[in-house]
Amino acid sequence: MPGEFDFINWIRSQAKPTDFVQLPQGDDLAVLKWNADDLLLVGVDQVLDGVHFDFKIHSPQQIGRKVVNRNFSDCAAMACLPAALVVSAGLPEGAGVEYAKSIYQGMREAAETFNCPIVGGDTGSWSGRLVLSVTVLGRSAGIAPISRKGAKPGEFIYVTGPLGGSILGRHMEFQPRIELARDLARTGRISAMLDISDGLSRDLRHICQQSHVGATIEADQIPIHDDARTLSAKDGRPPIDHALHDGEDHELLFTSTVPIEHPSTTCIGKTTTDPAILIRRDGILSPLEPLGWQHSL
Amino acid sequence: MPGEFDFINWIRSQAKPTDFVQLPQGDDLAVLKWNADDLLLVGVDQVLDGVHFDFKIHSPQQIGRKVVNRNFSDCAAMACLPAALVVSAGLPEGAGVEYAKSIYQGMREAAETFNCPIVGGDTGSWSGRLVLSVTVLGRSAGIAPISRKGAKPGEFIYVTGPLGGSILGRHMEFQPRIELARDLARTGRISAMLDISDGLSRDLRHICQQSHVGATIEADQIPIHDDARTLSAKDGRPPIDHALHDGEDHELLFTSTVPIEHPSTTCIGKTTTDPAILIRRDGILSPLEPLGWQHSL
Repeated sequence: MPGEFDFINWIRSQAKPTDFVQLPQGDDLAVLKWNADDLLLVGVDQVLDGVHFDFKIHSPQQIGRKVVNRNFSDCAAMACLPAALVVSAGLPEGAGVEYAKSIYQGMREAAETFNCPIVGGDTGSWSGRLVLSVTVLGRSAGIAPISRKGAKPGEFIYVTGPLGGSILGRHMEFQPRIELARDLARTGRISAMLDISDGLSRDLRHICQQSHVGATIEADQIPIHDDARTLSAKDGRPPIDHALHDGEDHELLFTSTVPIEHPSTTCIGKTTTDPAILIRRDGILSPLEPLGWQHSL
Repeated sequence: MPGEFDFINWIRSQAKPTDFVQLPQGDDLAVLKWNADDLLLVGVDQVLDGVHFDFKIHSPQQIGRKVVNRNFSDCAAMACLPAALVVSAGLPEGAGVEYAKSIYQGMREAAETFNCPIVGGDTGSWSGRLVLSVTVLGRSAGIAPISRKGAKPGEFIYVTGPLGGSILGRHMEFQPRIELARDLARTGRISAMLDISDGLSRDLRHICQQSHVGATIEADQIPIHDDARTLSAKDGRPPIDHALHDGEDHELLFTSTVPIEHPSTTCIGKTTTDPAILIRRDGILSPLEPLGWQHSL
């Protein structure tokens, strides 16, 4: 329909050309010149209305920032640098061009924090709910990626910040721990790492299962976020339960072969040869069940 | 919830390790070793229920194949080879694990045609409609990517197959023209190319605008698909109109500096210095309006 706003062309007009991006979006595919020294990391994260955000409550900028930052948090988990993004959006009919632009502005705002260009996209409107999907390309940039499977028994388990109660708002506004992750990885002592998206109890299990170790967590060493206490006052569940099981903290959970001296990290336990995942509360050890977030199909 | 099916782990278990993919999905990001000689091409295409397919009519395998083949058709448009895919899926609540597996099997079936691994994914269920988004990484593999902006006046305009009426079923089952595209590109004579997703009349405009040329199309040289005639018999619109304006043919539209002798290609006109885009019907030139598919926001 002549005269209609061309969203993809508008996105393209926002892109800044670089040596890295030879052809920005607007063509069928963007063309990038990958640095031969860099491993290429790639992954995708989507956000769905009613699951990861609420279309009626959150602003389009917030939603755009969140989906990009979820991907950047995956980069942090692997200690790589974001290199490029491609984005897709299914927009509710009638949301309109200004709404779409606002989503994109939120995405770009988050992306520019790490000098990461948005190089491609696909946008459509439909009778469905708002959905955004973002793929990130990351580059190793001199640091070997940290996987989930390098932990050995007897190592130290750390988190990078207080946990729990992110649903009160932090789940929309977290900061990906990319620089911290790379500082840590540079020590050469980090054996396994991920970002806590599904809750400490569930994500710890991912490291243990993939590394073939168990863990003993000290409940009284887990840093508890004020939001967990606020939420506890409302719902009566102990703050430690929120810290253990709430999702979308997006702090890093990692294992180290040696004790770490870093103001942003807190040791919460140790890995074990026995595959059980245990928590010590008031001196008593019991199994730490994974009660965190899980999508059911 | 213990015992619940872990879809992402299941996807991971399906992956075949290669030299190229160092860590398959299952970690936060997949790690790839990119070949220094290859340009990296990247883009994303989504399919939305009610727009690109019908959840009630099409099988999950068909839908999975379609979203992958849309991405591969973008690879054909740039004359690159698919190297890796990441996929995201928003699944309607209650669709179930078997349904999700069937989508994935459709995706993998299409992907394996071009030996392209699926290296990452994100899956969630929601109260919304089915949406799939796929990002493709392509590699130049010895052939310079063909953009939309290289056409010059006086060149020959080609399509790679009969057009129109894809809505009768071909839009779910097309074959990406990757090998043909690379055969053509190897001649060194192809100046601009894309795949026809929004209809010939609209996609031709993309080449003309980005290349700063016009075009004259010969109506009687456009190959018309039998589906366009079938549809014409139903809706009374001339078959040529379907060939000109229907979307999702996914044939290639390209310009060549010389006449091409290839059984799969048909010359339909020439580029011009004058920026007008014209069609000659029964000897009479008139403007070719872009009536093809366009999403409105």
